[in-house]
Amino acid sequence: MKITILTIFPNLFDSLLKNTIIQRAISNNLVSINIVNIRDYTKDKYKRVDTPPIGGGSGLIMKCQPIVDAIRSNSNENTHKILLSPKGRTFNQVLAQNYSKMNDLLIVCGNYEGIDERVDNYVDELVSIGDYIITGGELASMIIANSVIRLLPHAINNESIIDESFENNLLEYPQYTEPFDFEGFKVPEVLKCGNHEVINRYRYKMSLKYTKKYRPDLFNKLSLTKQDIDLLNEDDISENELKAINKNKIK
Amino acid sequence: MKITILTIFPNLFDSLLKNTIIQRAISNNLVSINIVNIRDYTKDKYKRVDTPPIGGGSGLIMKCQPIVDAIRSNSNENTHKILLSPKGRTFNQVLAQNYSKMNDLLIVCGNYEGIDERVDNYVDELVSIGDYIITGGELASMIIANSVIRLLPHAINNESIIDESFENNLLEYPQYTEPFDFEGFKVPEVLKCGNHEVINRYRYKMSLKYTKKYRPDLFNKLSLTKQDIDLLNEDDISENELKAINKNKIK
Repeated sequence: MKITILTIFPNLFDSLLKNTIIQRAISNNLVSINIVNIRDYTKDKYKRVDTPPIGGGSGLIMKCQPIVDAIRSNSNENTHKILLSPKGRTFNQVLAQNYSKMNDLLIVCGNYEGIDERVDNYVDELVSIGDYIITGGELASMIIANSVIRLLPHAINNESIIDESFENNLLEYPQYTEPFDFEGFKVPEVLKCGNHEVINRYRYKMSLKYTKKYRPDLFNKLSLTKQDIDLLNEDDISENELKAINKNKIK
Repeated sequence: MKITILTIFPNLFDSLLKNTIIQRAISNNLVSINIVNIRDYTKDKYKRVDTPPIGGGSGLIMKCQPIVDAIRSNSNENTHKILLSPKGRTFNQVLAQNYSKMNDLLIVCGNYEGIDERVDNYVDELVSIGDYIITGGELASMIIANSVIRLLPHAINNESIIDESFENNLLEYPQYTEPFDFEGFKVPEVLKCGNHEVINRYRYKMSLKYTKKYRPDLFNKLSLTKQDIDLLNEDDISENELKAINKNKIK
């Protein structure tokens, strides 16, 4: 896969490229990352990439010409071209998965007060990473690149991807480490019972319960089975789980 | 304002600190940023900060002790402590504004497969920047820090903040730069009429229309006035605007 990022601040991309998972994906030829300086494409004699908006207003707006020429020079008909924009569709895990199946992704980062509206005509899709404003698109492009690269086959342990949050609109179950008692906060006993069937069932139950509690908006999108509803109505530690705990204690 | 970020990858923060607006805010003493290495707080003799999850499963989970000690050593009763977590409330511009009024913000970045669930008990709030998974919380913490710092008084031109997207659940109006005709795509004539009252009204109309078109979810949260509804029912270029355009042409 190839990811091209168009920016006027190419020196900001260390945080993306220093990340160990991304570095490994690059070394293993899973992905190549191409950071392109939009300023290299301006035909303005002062090398400007921005100018005040027509009609007046504060700040500077990025001009069409340098961006459009940078897009043209770094894409072909198979490139999926994304412009980061507050009016774009909100990025999510489903989009990350779709992008991870593409061969050639190009992301345009805006800056200053925004980008000339007409640049919209030269991309395939407008995307936003959330309903907040940041000083430029660079961090947002790194978020998208990072989320996409980690989904590439062999980028990380594939098992890690199966149970994670936002897969199937479920939050991940809670995880615990040693010690069993940390300042009075205890690990649920059932995780120590040694019965993997019981543990997996407990974790799935907690995934459902957590999604309902913390993200009712995602929960409402779930198609619950009869078994899911039964699990949701169970206590956090059910009789079934208590039996497994006690059986383990007797051993 | 002070922002403390707890991380196991302190060297990833160049992208935050190299940003010109953030640099200027630091130089002008609007904010101080404190990047803390969680690993410095581990009591594990091998300096580990992570361990396999209790109950089995793939990957490594960050332990309680190093994080909790790092939180305690870098906060006091006035610190607002945030843990980045998929089950947190979704970050947005209202949260960014709230945080920008705080004196002392601490952000904990997770990594690997996640963080021991019990760390939740040591923070004030769980926050997520969106419904997608990235390799660690570092980029997310930079997004939050960036969005908060730019809202600090005098961090950027204050006028820039008034009209921006997500203020009052409205997308910003479209912006245009010279040339008036770029490869056949034209700037709306009304922006050249020179009448600022007409231009401001046109821009507000386009803000409403864009929000309705691109973000119906935000649009549904608006309390529309009678005037807003009239504007929405107007053509993109109304008779009123045509008059201003023609008047300008006659001049």
